[in-house]
Amino acid sequence: METGKIPGGYNGKILRINLSMNNITTEEIDESFCRKYLGGAGFIAYYLLKELRAHVDPLGPENKLIFSTGPLTGIKASGFARHCIGAKSPLTNTIAKSEAGEFWGSELKAAGFDGVIIEGKAAKPVYISIIDGQVAIKDAAHLWGKTTKETQDTIRVELDDKRVRVGMIGAAGENMVRYACIMHGLYDAAGRGGLGAVMGSKNLKAIAVRGHKPPDMVRPEAVKELRDWLVANIAKVKLFQDFGSGGYMTPYEASGNLPVRNFRDGLFPTVAAIEGKTIKETIRIGMDGCFGCLVRCKKVVKTGDPYNVQPEYGGPEYETLAALGSNCGIDNLAAICKGNELCNAYSLDTISTGGSIAFAMECFEKGILTTKDTGGLDLRFGNTEAMLKLIEMIAKREGIGDLLAEGTAIAAEKIGKGAMEYAMHVKGLELALHEPRLKTGLGLGYMVDPIGADHCLNLHDTLFVMNGQMNDLHPLGLLEGVPADDIGPKKVVLFKAMHGLRMLGDCLPVCMILPFSYKQLADLTAAVTGWDTDIAEQIRNAETVLTMMRLFNIREGFGEADDKLPMRFFQPKTDGILSKTHLDYEKFEKAKRFYYALMGWNPETGIPLPEKIEELGIPQI
Amino acid sequence: METGKIPGGYNGKILRINLSMNNITTEEIDESFCRKYLGGAGFIAYYLLKELRAHVDPLGPENKLIFSTGPLTGIKASGFARHCIGAKSPLTNTIAKSEAGEFWGSELKAAGFDGVIIEGKAAKPVYISIIDGQVAIKDAAHLWGKTTKETQDTIRVELDDKRVRVGMIGAAGENMVRYACIMHGLYDAAGRGGLGAVMGSKNLKAIAVRGHKPPDMVRPEAVKELRDWLVANIAKVKLFQDFGSGGYMTPYEASGNLPVRNFRDGLFPTVAAIEGKTIKETIRIGMDGCFGCLVRCKKVVKTGDPYNVQPEYGGPEYETLAALGSNCGIDNLAAICKGNELCNAYSLDTISTGGSIAFAMECFEKGILTTKDTGGLDLRFGNTEAMLKLIEMIAKREGIGDLLAEGTAIAAEKIGKGAMEYAMHVKGLELALHEPRLKTGLGLGYMVDPIGADHCLNLHDTLFVMNGQMNDLHPLGLLEGVPADDIGPKKVVLFKAMHGLRMLGDCLPVCMILPFSYKQLADLTAAVTGWDTDIAEQIRNAETVLTMMRLFNIREGFGEADDKLPMRFFQPKTDGILSKTHLDYEKFEKAKRFYYALMGWNPETGIPLPEKIEELGIPQI
Repeated sequence: METGKIPGGYNGKILRINLSMNNITTEEIDESFCRKYLGGAGFIAYYLLKELRAHVDPLGPENKLIFSTGPLTGIKASGFARHCIGAKSPLTNTIAKSEAGEFWGSELKAAGFDGVIIEGKAAKPVYISIIDGQVAIKDAAHLWGKTTKETQDTIRVELDDKRVRVGMIGAAGENMVRYACIMHGLYDAAGRGGLGAVMGSKNLKAIAVRGHKPPDMVRPEAVKELRDWLVANIAKVKLFQDFGSGGYMTPYEASGNLPVRNFRDGLFPTVAAIEGKTIKETIRIGMDGCFGCLVRCKKVVKTGDPYNVQPEYGGPEYETLAALGSNCGIDNLAAICKGNELCNAYSLDTISTGGSIAFAMECFEKGILTTKDTGGLDLRFGNTEAMLKLIEMIAKREGIGDLLAEGTAIAAEKIGKGAMEYAMHVKGLELALHEPRLKTGLGLGYMVDPIGADHCLNLHDTLFVMNGQMNDLHPLGLLEGVPADDIGPKKVVLFKAMHGLRMLGDCLPVCMILPFSYKQLADLTAAVTGWDTDIAEQIRNAETVLTMMRLFNIREGFGEADDKLPMRFFQPKTDGILSKTHLDYEKFEKAKRFYYALMGWNPETGIPLPEKIEELGIPQI
Repeated sequence: METGKIPGGYNGKILRINLSMNNITTEEIDESFCRKYLGGAGFIAYYLLKELRAHVDPLGPENKLIFSTGPLTGIKASGFARHCIGAKSPLTNTIAKSEAGEFWGSELKAAGFDGVIIEGKAAKPVYISIIDGQVAIKDAAHLWGKTTKETQDTIRVELDDKRVRVGMIGAAGENMVRYACIMHGLYDAAGRGGLGAVMGSKNLKAIAVRGHKPPDMVRPEAVKELRDWLVANIAKVKLFQDFGSGGYMTPYEASGNLPVRNFRDGLFPTVAAIEGKTIKETIRIGMDGCFGCLVRCKKVVKTGDPYNVQPEYGGPEYETLAALGSNCGIDNLAAICKGNELCNAYSLDTISTGGSIAFAMECFEKGILTTKDTGGLDLRFGNTEAMLKLIEMIAKREGIGDLLAEGTAIAAEKIGKGAMEYAMHVKGLELALHEPRLKTGLGLGYMVDPIGADHCLNLHDTLFVMNGQMNDLHPLGLLEGVPADDIGPKKVVLFKAMHGLRMLGDCLPVCMILPFSYKQLADLTAAVTGWDTDIAEQIRNAETVLTMMRLFNIREGFGEADDKLPMRFFQPKTDGILSKTHLDYEKFEKAKRFYYALMGWNPETGIPLPEKIEELGIPQI
């Protein structure tokens, strides 16, 4: 490997902006670095592990907010409009990383950078413009307090470019709601872990990007081949194309995967009212997509009074339909669309928002919270108005919204009175809207994933079969699937493999909806970069990244005891298909320890073995 | 996978012969069994783990002696004339397995069987004939005490077939010398672990095989392709073709790999007198090879008085040249050839024989053994006559030969007086003739290999680079070699991969000299069997087999404390290139534990984790 040379797929440049110092620098990265960490989540793990001290305040100037593309970002084919954002999470104190699509990542790369590291804290609100290699820090006083739509519109006018792409926060980010997200355009969030709060803590309202440099690649013909393959295999993503992710609502309710009323219940008989097909037939006015994508799974909706929404904010994804819908006992589709609009306008993660509201609702029904706490709000499950009101209050940190803006774990701690029993989180991250009682691999993933109960873990039990990704496991020596409800050693091995693949997907990065096999992606990486790389090397890279994230969390004081599911899942649901099903605590503890062993971590403590760290070539920390 | 169906490459039949009962049965094996255990060492690990109780006397009727072919045995191309033999070792009490070439395995397969399991003990000496599916137990009273040549000649006359192939023992096997081997023809030994003693303990003199059924294969054209590839790449094995394994003597002495005087010394200035080139130029009268092989690495030699040898016994391999030569301080080539002839005639493993003699010589020089013990023999290093005399005495268990016939570990225990310091063994198996002070991967292999200090472990640091097998490691995510003297985590990972590949080679089985990549071998297996298999699946199978062998040993009471090198290696040699080099005890202990972790074994105890056992699908024992 030639040191210094930069392969296709990379600009070889990381932009570092210190907002305390008003300092803008460009750093070079070399080929060996790119090949080892790939990009996306890999770069983020590297910089956060290397540059952050232990126990920095995630909302203080010492935290760093990192935007990173990867070798596949910006390729003109479906699925490659991705970038990853990371920081120490103010919600969990673990490492946070979250991905987004839209056009922002592709523009950043076309503007000449592979990533941006934001340090320090601006003295007053600012935004950053990155236009074809030119970088500027600009005043954002007039944008502070504005919605994402107002912010994007204003910046586009100021920069005199309707096609400039804006990553930004609304009021929730400014108010440092611990699960504020970063919006890219008006309906693409890097949602999880409170990255928007970190952005707000730095007085950074937005980063606007625009570029014109097409990505370098060594064998561009591979892109056309992949496009042709997708056209021939588009049936594999037909459900997404037809209905978006909301197409899963009804089958998920039937199988028991759909959380109902804070994961307490199983039946949601009116699910058809809020599912993708209904959306299509009633309120949908179009579909939209990310850069270069022909799947176009993003719904655009139009509703009437009293829940009139601005179509520019898009429609709710599956996670949002379940989070603000069934998990709050709500089946009013237009109201959910309104809630989605509010979250996107204020930059709130819909999953954690819905989880916090559902938590509050169950506490209210249990008498742990009363109208005295809620300022008169009747927080029973199913109260549509209360749900919408709470979103506003959370974003603005008003009344009980200020408490719920801390996330379920901190809120439950503050409330006391046994509220923690109803806080559906792992390490402080609200559970994604997928049921571990049904999918044990997902449950194990919730336990051990470095960021907590991530929604991308859902793939481990379901989509990979649909998408033929079992084929990717053959090179790992895995020949067969394992039943969803099995949490024995074979499932753990399968989980570890899938988890590695998903982390790999976040390093390249690539959209998890597309039906490409990881072998195809490795071949594409080879074609783009010119490396003689393959899936095995890339999985190893991804496992290195997972171990680095583990090390980050261990440095923050996390350990084996934090890798645990809420106790609710060791009891059955009240009704529905899983009313007789609960998880076995001991089996999950064993599975967790075996996962540690497979990762080369101490099976008792979950701490990576020194030999494993050395072998993976993880730098001294 | 269709149960019951037998894929190409297998007969689907295991022959089981109980010599106590005079009972001959045939058992069927099915496709799932074949795919999981492959054959060779895999079948042996399965049957020994399943069928042997703990702590049976390895020289009693309860031990079982298993001959096994694999899917590639008998393919008409270089390297596939292999079979594997296993039993509980009378030398070590661990599992024993050892491979041989020649024509025997190919004939067994052509006779309609994939393997033979020998049980019980015959009331009087017998031999077994297996001719085209017909099996008979025959009287061998007249063969008892005969040399291998006499035995083979007689059996061929009796069976009226000059091309019958004979696996057999000489006096050493009959006398249950704990490191007696099983000879196939007159110069192909399944050498290690005392399998010949097990055969002798069963009163079984020989197994004669002959068959005419060509092996089934699904895509026979793959064999021609591989042959063509080898012809085009024959330069990769030129040293073997020109000089046999003896070609390595001089470069090994120069690099420090050649053991001198019981691993004590480093310099052997007269090495040129006993190396492959000298053999070629002085005493070699031809080269011979195994079934189907164009490398033909087996030397045939002719010497004059006083060390006149019968050319039918072949010439010494590298291990023999070093074991009876440099490691005993002997540089008389003809005498080494004579020693080689004696070992082959009596069925003695030349490695353990040389190791035992070198041990006795060092004890003698240290005064731990005296002429009183040796019956007057002057056992100083370099005494050629003493070396030859001891071979006879060991084979016949005469005088001190009876003690040395127990192997160095038991002999040292019996001698006491600090003799153990000079016993160069791991778990009782005498060290192969490769220097762990030079090659740390080899050293780790000596420690953890299930059979002890095996010579095949040599490949882990050297040949695989020559043979381009580093390419095989790329699919495992390994990109680069590690220096020979490094025993850090990267070397452990590399070792684990190589060790798995080598065990895979013993399952297929295939000769380790051939320069095929394991990907080529996996593709060939797929072509032969029709399975959609690949290297990753096969490595997983091999690691399953390694774990089963580990479980066998643990059942016998072995544990982490037995995985250790002789203390000599933590001190430098007296002279030569390694006179300043010694191994670091703590580093090796760490490496051992990390290897356990990588295997899914408890890092402290080396016991396979229950979850790993379950995940690999190893049957309950």
